[in-house]
Amino acid sequence: MLDTPRFTEVTPTADIRVARHGNRAKCLQRLIRMDLPVPQTVALPFDAVRDIAAGRMPDLATLLALFDDGAPVLLSVRSSSQTPDWGGPGAVLNVGMTAAVRDALAATMGGEAADRLFVRFVRDYATDVMRLDGAAFDGADPEAALAAYEAEMDEPFPEDPARQLREVLRSMARAWEGTSARLLRQAQGAPADAGLGLVVQRMAQGMAPGQSGAGVIQFVDPETGAPQVTGRYMAGAMGREALGAETSLYLTHDLRGPSLEDRLPEVFGELVEIGARCRVRLREEMQVEFTLEQGRLHVLDAVRCPRGPRAAVAIATALARDGVIPRSEAITRIPPGTLSQLLHRQVAPGAARDVLARGIAASPGAAAGRIVFDSAAAQASQSRDERCILVRRETAPEDVRGMHAADGILTERGGTTSHAAVIARGLGLPCVTGAEIVVDHKAREVRLPGGGTLREGDEITIDGTAGTVLAGRVATVEPAMDGAFADLMGWADAVRDIGVRVNADTPADASLARGFGVDGIGLCRTEHMFFEEDRLTVMREMIFADRDADRVAALDRLLPMQRADFAELFRLMEGLPVCIRLLDPPLHEFLPGTTEGMRALAEALGQPLARVRARIEAMGEFNPMLGMRGVRLGIAVPGIYEMQARAIFEAVAQTGGVVPEIMIPLVTARREVELVRARIDAVAAEVRAETGAAFDYRLGVMVETPRAALRAGEIAEQAAFLSFGTNDLTQMTYGLSRDDAGRFMSAYVNQGVYPEDPFQTLDIDGVGELLLLGAQRGRATRGDVTLALCGEHGGDPEAIAFCRLAGFDYVSCSPFRVPVAKLAAAQATLLAQEANARAK
Amino acid sequence: MLDTPRFTEVTPTADIRVARHGNRAKCLQRLIRMDLPVPQTVALPFDAVRDIAAGRMPDLATLLALFDDGAPVLLSVRSSSQTPDWGGPGAVLNVGMTAAVRDALAATMGGEAADRLFVRFVRDYATDVMRLDGAAFDGADPEAALAAYEAEMDEPFPEDPARQLREVLRSMARAWEGTSARLLRQAQGAPADAGLGLVVQRMAQGMAPGQSGAGVIQFVDPETGAPQVTGRYMAGAMGREALGAETSLYLTHDLRGPSLEDRLPEVFGELVEIGARCRVRLREEMQVEFTLEQGRLHVLDAVRCPRGPRAAVAIATALARDGVIPRSEAITRIPPGTLSQLLHRQVAPGAARDVLARGIAASPGAAAGRIVFDSAAAQASQSRDERCILVRRETAPEDVRGMHAADGILTERGGTTSHAAVIARGLGLPCVTGAEIVVDHKAREVRLPGGGTLREGDEITIDGTAGTVLAGRVATVEPAMDGAFADLMGWADAVRDIGVRVNADTPADASLARGFGVDGIGLCRTEHMFFEEDRLTVMREMIFADRDADRVAALDRLLPMQRADFAELFRLMEGLPVCIRLLDPPLHEFLPGTTEGMRALAEALGQPLARVRARIEAMGEFNPMLGMRGVRLGIAVPGIYEMQARAIFEAVAQTGGVVPEIMIPLVTARREVELVRARIDAVAAEVRAETGAAFDYRLGVMVETPRAALRAGEIAEQAAFLSFGTNDLTQMTYGLSRDDAGRFMSAYVNQGVYPEDPFQTLDIDGVGELLLLGAQRGRATRGDVTLALCGEHGGDPEAIAFCRLAGFDYVSCSPFRVPVAKLAAAQATLLAQEANARAK
Repeated sequence: MLDTPRFTEVTPTADIRVARHGNRAKCLQRLIRMDLPVPQTVALPFDAVRDIAAGRMPDLATLLALFDDGAPVLLSVRSSSQTPDWGGPGAVLNVGMTAAVRDALAATMGGEAADRLFVRFVRDYATDVMRLDGAAFDGADPEAALAAYEAEMDEPFPEDPARQLREVLRSMARAWEGTSARLLRQAQGAPADAGLGLVVQRMAQGMAPGQSGAGVIQFVDPETGAPQVTGRYMAGAMGREALGAETSLYLTHDLRGPSLEDRLPEVFGELVEIGARCRVRLREEMQVEFTLEQGRLHVLDAVRCPRGPRAAVAIATALARDGVIPRSEAITRIPPGTLSQLLHRQVAPGAARDVLARGIAASPGAAAGRIVFDSAAAQASQSRDERCILVRRETAPEDVRGMHAADGILTERGGTTSHAAVIARGLGLPCVTGAEIVVDHKAREVRLPGGGTLREGDEITIDGTAGTVLAGRVATVEPAMDGAFADLMGWADAVRDIGVRVNADTPADASLARGFGVDGIGLCRTEHMFFEEDRLTVMREMIFADRDADRVAALDRLLPMQRADFAELFRLMEGLPVCIRLLDPPLHEFLPGTTEGMRALAEALGQPLARVRARIEAMGEFNPMLGMRGVRLGIAVPGIYEMQARAIFEAVAQTGGVVPEIMIPLVTARREVELVRARIDAVAAEVRAETGAAFDYRLGVMVETPRAALRAGEIAEQAAFLSFGTNDLTQMTYGLSRDDAGRFMSAYVNQGVYPEDPFQTLDIDGVGELLLLGAQRGRATRGDVTLALCGEHGGDPEAIAFCRLAGFDYVSCSPFRVPVAKLAAAQATLLAQEANARAK
Repeated sequence: MLDTPRFTEVTPTADIRVARHGNRAKCLQRLIRMDLPVPQTVALPFDAVRDIAAGRMPDLATLLALFDDGAPVLLSVRSSSQTPDWGGPGAVLNVGMTAAVRDALAATMGGEAADRLFVRFVRDYATDVMRLDGAAFDGADPEAALAAYEAEMDEPFPEDPARQLREVLRSMARAWEGTSARLLRQAQGAPADAGLGLVVQRMAQGMAPGQSGAGVIQFVDPETGAPQVTGRYMAGAMGREALGAETSLYLTHDLRGPSLEDRLPEVFGELVEIGARCRVRLREEMQVEFTLEQGRLHVLDAVRCPRGPRAAVAIATALARDGVIPRSEAITRIPPGTLSQLLHRQVAPGAARDVLARGIAASPGAAAGRIVFDSAAAQASQSRDERCILVRRETAPEDVRGMHAADGILTERGGTTSHAAVIARGLGLPCVTGAEIVVDHKAREVRLPGGGTLREGDEITIDGTAGTVLAGRVATVEPAMDGAFADLMGWADAVRDIGVRVNADTPADASLARGFGVDGIGLCRTEHMFFEEDRLTVMREMIFADRDADRVAALDRLLPMQRADFAELFRLMEGLPVCIRLLDPPLHEFLPGTTEGMRALAEALGQPLARVRARIEAMGEFNPMLGMRGVRLGIAVPGIYEMQARAIFEAVAQTGGVVPEIMIPLVTARREVELVRARIDAVAAEVRAETGAAFDYRLGVMVETPRAALRAGEIAEQAAFLSFGTNDLTQMTYGLSRDDAGRFMSAYVNQGVYPEDPFQTLDIDGVGELLLLGAQRGRATRGDVTLALCGEHGGDPEAIAFCRLAGFDYVSCSPFRVPVAKLAAAQATLLAQEANARAK
């Protein structure tokens, strides 16, 4: 077997690979190839470091000989993991420092500086390598530092550079194997066998006399990504010291104090020129670590410039606009999920966070305000122009008014797809559900897990991105949808080959989504249209109708309201498809849950409260999710779907410009579709005859039961489209209610029972197979059947890539997920094109 | 195209087929082949009758010419459908009767008899053929009858025999096409295009002078199937008149009155001899319709002797014991579902039924008793030795004591697999669920659909076989498991090649099932073990434990109770496998639902009522079926499963003789099984070490979520058996709660949305595909994985045949379904053997 080299000097032609030596080693080679003044560097590959941890040291004499130029040599050792995010032990500088080296340095940089450098190395070696307490070395002179070391270690400080290097390498190699380091990098996605490379570099001495010092420079603002030289420089310093020091210089001319640009304009110019070269040659905005040694510039390292999501978009689009990278690469560089942070107000990155409770991150963004416990209080707050957070045990249709008035929602119960979460995402409101709090509506207080209590009027901040409840009013930053964002979206639209529609129930949703540039409405849930107060009353009268005539009368009153809803949607979405789901939830969801609400209903109906209560109780179900809802309701009370179909057709007869799609929910068998289809076709014929309008429509099925997926072949005979509702499909495939899963889902994911929460990330193995089966069978029966995914997973990048592969026509997601979905769709398309190109 | 004959004279060699001429025509041919004295007969095939209905009459002159022997001829016309159950219009006798024929008959039988015969035919023709009101003909003489006919019809009574025959044939052919006849036969399983044959037969004249008359004879008791000549004979009568008449004779010697055996011993002897020949030649107990014409015996017809389920078993097994049919045929002749009627007390066949309300037939059998509304009243009733029916809105664990004390259960809510239904079937109690009643526990009354009200103490009868509530105390008949039943079971056991186990939770279930001869326990639900009062209290303490130590203490108290349960089961089932399902239901099911119950619990725990109520409410779930239950509970509160495993192992260490099977419920992912398995293996190791006992066990999975079926391949890596729980699997595949489905399932089935209630009949297309996928994938991973179906469908013959084909090892069903399942399994095996034999 061929021996792999135990270390390699990094030269333009050396065989340095990211997968063997790590990212830093490779990056240094690239800098060297650009002829940048990089000090001499040797790279140790992963397997060598693994051997070091196991006690097998490479030949250090040979390694040190590479650096031997007759003078004393000082070295830095830095980690080089495969991906910067996976971390690695901190750098150790000035390895090789001995009393003899100190004396030699004293001759060039003066005794005081040499002593400082010496003591500093002894301290670093003692603490970072030998794991001693650093306090004994603070402010010590060389003798005292050596004495402290010997007292602690029972042996003198090693004077042998090879011994020092060996201990440094061993210490760093072992630190990589430690449990906490392992867990941290695995949390960042590192595999269990991720390796560590090490880079040994000749020190450029920023503590040398004359024009010496060290600094860090980057050329864009880390928050906005706008061109802006950023960083600090400090004379007589080394490494990244300049960043934390008060005495360090600004880099570019600055009113706040002296700058490198003013003091050493040539060096500054050289750095700017290096930055520009790096940007083009490395195709990235880099952060450059540099040292000035007696007037001579050394580039020690360069890393991908750290950035927030907004800066990431700005940098990638700028690189593409400048022709440095193609647009397709700008698209693939942005993790789609980070976009949603641009669309919502967020907790300011630097703000102090006093976490009162944790919960489920149900709708992104942050909001601060006073606690209110009901809709009336939320509306009162709004009328006073006061920000408020609506806190409920759980929300119900009656709370929707309050949710409109509130700035954020916090609930004790529910998960990512509970009523509160779905409505909040639709409204773009931050929402935390399933929080570890106890909401006592009677006492109007919230009990916290720590034992504290919050009362109505107390100020809190909820962070729906992180799923936390914070004490007081925490600073937030505004959303940022700038030109770069618009460019990125435009490019993604040009690339993607799967449609992105929006789940939009209201004109507000529809307008918002048109602003994001959608391909239509993929899911308009009509139930939300009945939750406004005047309609809710009529709806309740319809439900309580004892005689058919009363029911028809109530439906007749609902008809013009529904028609107006649809007409407005159709006008807003002109030219685009609008898919309307017929009424889905169990009727009892429209009934009041409180005595107060029941009394109001009893008054409206002129019936005794006891009778109203009894009927509401009689309508209760053991498992409403699996009960009398969806198409079952449509078959049991045909008047509802007929009214809705008439409203749709009359609206389209009025407005034109849209081919409405009518979707039947909760289907399990073909015959259900046949029955509903016959009635809807009849209504269409009536409306055509009455209005004289010629309009088309498409009728399809929401596939959300496992049976509908399995029987998609015969169902497609009756359906122009199959839209997979993965919320319910996931619930039924797992036998797991999303509303009840919150209690144990995080424990389940933490124990690795499920790799991910299947309500957040599409379960490809289980639910995904049903999607595939359904898609194949549907297409086998009807080659042109439209396939879609609607539901929360419509905004999940993995689900989008999966749907694209399965030949779906579009995905549909909540308005604020549309940009995420479009970017993810474009990335999936590019990835597939790339794979195809490789395969050819 | 070859013309099919429009009619065929029935001779021993004629081409008469059941599928073309109907069952009666074929049967008559068989009688003719036996040289029985059958009058001349002509058969019209289905297509001829269809033509007749459409107005295309066959050549009746030719037909009549077949009967022409120079004398006046009278004919009967009878229907001949493919299967007797499909019905058909009633017979018309004496067709061809005219004034001339009357005169001719008067010469032989006397004027009075001839007039009677004439008037009777005019009346039958007028009412049955011309659809006139019969009142005008009652007691009329010939002139008056003819006048009445002419007055009504505006034309004289037809004197032309061909015209009479044409009208009779047309009338019968059209009656077959009528909507109500069509619906009735389709309810009996007839296809939409089922045809009707007609049989035209020369009349044997029972009203002739001398030894003339008509009767019906059969040779077994219709209820018990015991050998017993049954039937009646009446002189001067025709058709089946003897059966309804007070003056008719008994057949065999009878203390109640004169008999044919006494009066005409030769005729009687001839009939007995005919019966014996029929039994052997036709391989069936026949009912023979005969006419005596001036001393000469004619056999007009013979049909399969009508019989109840008990007689069916007795007849089939007797035929097999006598070597008339093979045992395999005896097995296939009994519809398995009818067996359950032998195991339970039933409403007496002739009893008057005043139906107060209808509901779901949730557990078979009939019971009469006084209404009670709670467990205490049921127990009080029992202590007074008074029969009672427990009436509840729905039942909960707290009601189980009352169910034990009651004679039947009636609930307003729930379906075939609700708590009430499952418990009732386990106890063998009649049960009607989801009845159209309103139970008012406060007022202690039941409101009926018709507007009436029943109060506590009122007597009712519930018929759990039919799903009805009957007024008062209706007569019932006892169950009948006699020698014939035992023979049939033994033969079925010898034939079947798929196992039948029992779902048994209690020693009583287990004993009962051993009595039926099962292959083991396929599902022992442990939750029922905690519903006894002393245990429920400890269970509740466990649930309410605030500290781990308290929970452990409660579990420690439950351990010996569980151990004793299992030890008793193991002793009872010695030598057979026992499959125990670990705790499945959500914990809150064990908590009290009433204020009274909560107060008792608060007292037991020494906690304030408000706190107990708040915690119970906090444990509530939106969709308990899809909530924190099954293995989710096992992972969240590991102590429960560990206690149960320990109880199982300690019991088997005590008793030996059984290899326990431990089943994990509600699995969705392999990792769940891994986690539970690791703990159970550890407990087993502990118990082995503590007791020194060597015992084996098998660990498997209940596949009841669609995902578990889809992922059965990887789950089988961790599971020795996969038992498909089709109750829950059906719920989840359909997205349909069995408890809530009752409200609309019957409407759904009536509208043909679902062909059958999928909770009653396995949905082969949907749920069945998941079973197949799961079975294939499980076997692919682990060739010897045991496959089973447990749940209500385990007793469904179609499901059993399906499981057999899918290679399942056994099905498991409730104790009283075991005989049904064994017979169905044997039939499925025989059917497959027959198909294989044909294929060779």
